[in-house]
Amino acid sequence: MTGHLEFYFDFSSPYGYLAAQRIDDLAARHGRVARWRPTLIGAAFKETGARPLLGQPMKGDYAAHDIARTARRIGVPFRLPRPFPFMSVAAARAFYWRTDQDEAEAKTLAKALYHAAFGEGGDISSAQQVAEISREACGLKVDEVLAALNEPSIKSRLRAEVDAALDRGVFGSPFIFIEDEPFWGFDRMPDIEAWFETGGW
Amino acid sequence: MTGHLEFYFDFSSPYGYLAAQRIDDLAARHGRVARWRPTLIGAAFKETGARPLLGQPMKGDYAAHDIARTARRIGVPFRLPRPFPFMSVAAARAFYWRTDQDEAEAKTLAKALYHAAFGEGGDISSAQQVAEISREACGLKVDEVLAALNEPSIKSRLRAEVDAALDRGVFGSPFIFIEDEPFWGFDRMPDIEAWFETGGW
Repeated sequence: MTGHLEFYFDFSSPYGYLAAQRIDDLAARHGRVARWRPTLIGAAFKETGARPLLGQPMKGDYAAHDIARTARRIGVPFRLPRPFPFMSVAAARAFYWRTDQDEAEAKTLAKALYHAAFGEGGDISSAQQVAEISREACGLKVDEVLAALNEPSIKSRLRAEVDAALDRGVFGSPFIFIEDEPFWGFDRMPDIEAWFETGGW
Repeated sequence: MTGHLEFYFDFSSPYGYLAAQRIDDLAARHGRVARWRPTLIGAAFKETGARPLLGQPMKGDYAAHDIARTARRIGVPFRLPRPFPFMSVAAARAFYWRTDQDEAEAKTLAKALYHAAFGEGGDISSAQQVAEISREACGLKVDEVLAALNEPSIKSRLRAEVDAALDRGVFGSPFIFIEDEPFWGFDRMPDIEAWFETGGW
């Protein structure tokens, strides 16, 4: 059986977008599969008192600069969506709706959503936009996606996932676990690589 | 003439301590000298609304774990001082008092102060403790250090440095500039290395 790592992220997180470009390859290099787990980081912000990154005095300007610089370094397209931050509930619900049926398709959808938001600077906040992207990326029917996003079972599924992420201590995005070892931030990916290579330290 | 890089840090910052172990070698590898610039990051926290890292819900526990893990990875002793956070005004004043007269001695003192705090978990918050460490590390006279720490000119020198750091956008520790390019955090040191190697991107 192949081991996993857990990749928590918020669809509205630019550093999550950067990590999403790398996480599957990183996991595969070490015989693992990345289990993608979108969450709503605003729920953790209520616990921690944190505020959206780019709106913060001083830090916000730096972060905007750092995100664009990091994207250039790793050769990934980057445009900050407007408006930003945006609601990522619809995107996360769509992911969980698909992943139980087809994990690979759900990842394809997640990558398409992230690309639309941070690769192209588009708006993925509404159910309609998420449904259109689901059609383009995965051939899903728009009406079917819209219906699924309104399903009480899908809504409660996302709530349960957000609660589980909070219980596990996920307060930012990306947030990655190797077994119980937590790594927060795109800049921890070299540490994750080293953790696999050395078995931990 | 040798170029510089500016290394801003707070003596009460654990990630600043980690960066201090590496910054001179990193600069030297690229024909530069690191100009150490202690500041008081609490002044920036007033602007940004940030709070001390380790006191934050969720994030604090993670950070304590991450700092110790990072110290183990790079082979540096680490013990969190108690109490923490602590006042770093006396340490920063001592540094600026010395650096105008002997930059190398001031760095020796800074390293000894950081080691006492985060290498040994000791208390460096009082003028008396800073004076004792100055004697042990640099052969300075305790009375002379205590007198200097009370000098209005030294006090205003630190205030001016803190204001200059704020004006430059320094909101965290460590914070490093290559010319005007800003890098925040110990985890940006590989980026700094890459920036020197490539000339920027």
